Amino acid sequence: MLDIETGSKLGKQLNFIIEIDKVKSILRKAKLVHEDRFENDAEHSWTICMMALTLHEHADFAVDIDKVIKMLLIHDIVEIDTGDTFLYDVARSGSKVKEILAAERIFGILEDEQKMDLMSLWIEFEQKETPEAKFAAAIDRLEPVLQNYLNEGGSWKANNITCEMVLENNQDIKNGSKEIWEFVLKLCDSAVEKGYLKRSLNDTGEKI
Amino acid sequence: MLDIETGSKLGKQLNFIIEIDKVKSILRKAKLVHEDRFENDAEHSWTICMMALTLHEHADFAVDIDKVIKMLLIHDIVEIDTGDTFLYDVARSGSKVKEILAAERIFGILEDEQKMDLMSLWIEFEQKETPEAKFAAAIDRLEPVLQNYLNEGGSWKANNITCEMVLENNQDIKNGSKEIWEFVLKLCDSAVEKGYLKRSLNDTGEKI
Repeated sequence: MLDIETGSKLGKQLNFIIEIDKVKSILRKAKLVHEDRFENDAEHSWTICMMALTLHEHADFAVDIDKVIKMLLIHDIVEIDTGDTFLYDVARSGSKVKEILAAERIFGILEDEQKMDLMSLWIEFEQKETPEAKFAAAIDRLEPVLQNYLNEGGSWKANNITCEMVLENNQDIKNGSKEIWEFVLKLCDSAVEKGYLKRSLNDTGEKI
Repeated sequence: MLDIETGSKLGKQLNFIIEIDKVKSILRKAKLVHEDRFENDAEHSWTICMMALTLHEHADFAVDIDKVIKMLLIHDIVEIDTGDTFLYDVARSGSKVKEILAAERIFGILEDEQKMDLMSLWIEFEQKETPEAKFAAAIDRLEPVLQNYLNEGGSWKANNITCEMVLENNQDIKNGSKEIWEFVLKLCDSAVEKGYLKRSLNDTGEKI
């Protein structure tokens, strides 16, 4: 909390900015491409904004890229309270209520109008129904796939993840961009070929 | 470089995304608010996008906030080649040519049209002439001021920085938002009062 007296609205906004700085301590499950350490949520959010900005022409439908970027900037702020969950964790789906409480608390540091703007954007992202939310979800999923490939298997190997599981759990990419999905299919084939990923749980990794 | 065959344009875009991931290894001179380590350029870029999104109503003029955010997302990518320079470093101004070469190389991984879009956005930011560039520059400067205050002097103390130097070197904030500048003046007074910052180089730090 800031101890400098300022306009009440500006003061709340600055305290919000100070609070959300905590995302820099929320570590994800995949490592960076160029460094041997886990990525944090701030780094992840920056990257997927840049991915969306660079790749939005490949969306299967028209998207308002500015809205997509704003969604991606704020999408993981709730993890300050809930932590990051692994995509392949079966307990993942139980965390919705906690996330809503987190959004209420953190966006609630702001005055009502601004809080509601960010809450609506976050809820729209979570619901994955609008073109912007679908494309944002696709890009959010693409980063760890790319990281794990470039890390020679990284968190896939560490968690015994198979190609089938990657494809099944990343359908958001398919729902946002057929062209990027085609790339993911090739990437998974290449990852199996290189031994970064098992084809299925029965795959011993030996080539016939 | 990605070894998966894909459409030439998509391939270049993915290689650009992989290249710019290097900003996560470019460390800045100020430490995080909630953790005792230096911030990297990806984290900084995310934060100032969030600051711009939260604070843009305080700009002294109308700004296209979506353009400001895009500028801030890409503004430090050149530092992959040039490194981060300290705001108070006198040798700082000599790096312009290196930065242009860096922008040419890194944005040049993309095809021409997309490269030029990002180059123009970056040049506009660097020139600080349009409302968006002025506000982006103000926000870019605000983050380290806030960090150093919350770190009880952090890189100010470590580098013998005075209140006069902070105000002189952060005129970009004044040029973007009078309201935020008023806050910075109060912050500096409070920092002097608390001993985080000397008033001037003759200031012994002793209270009279």
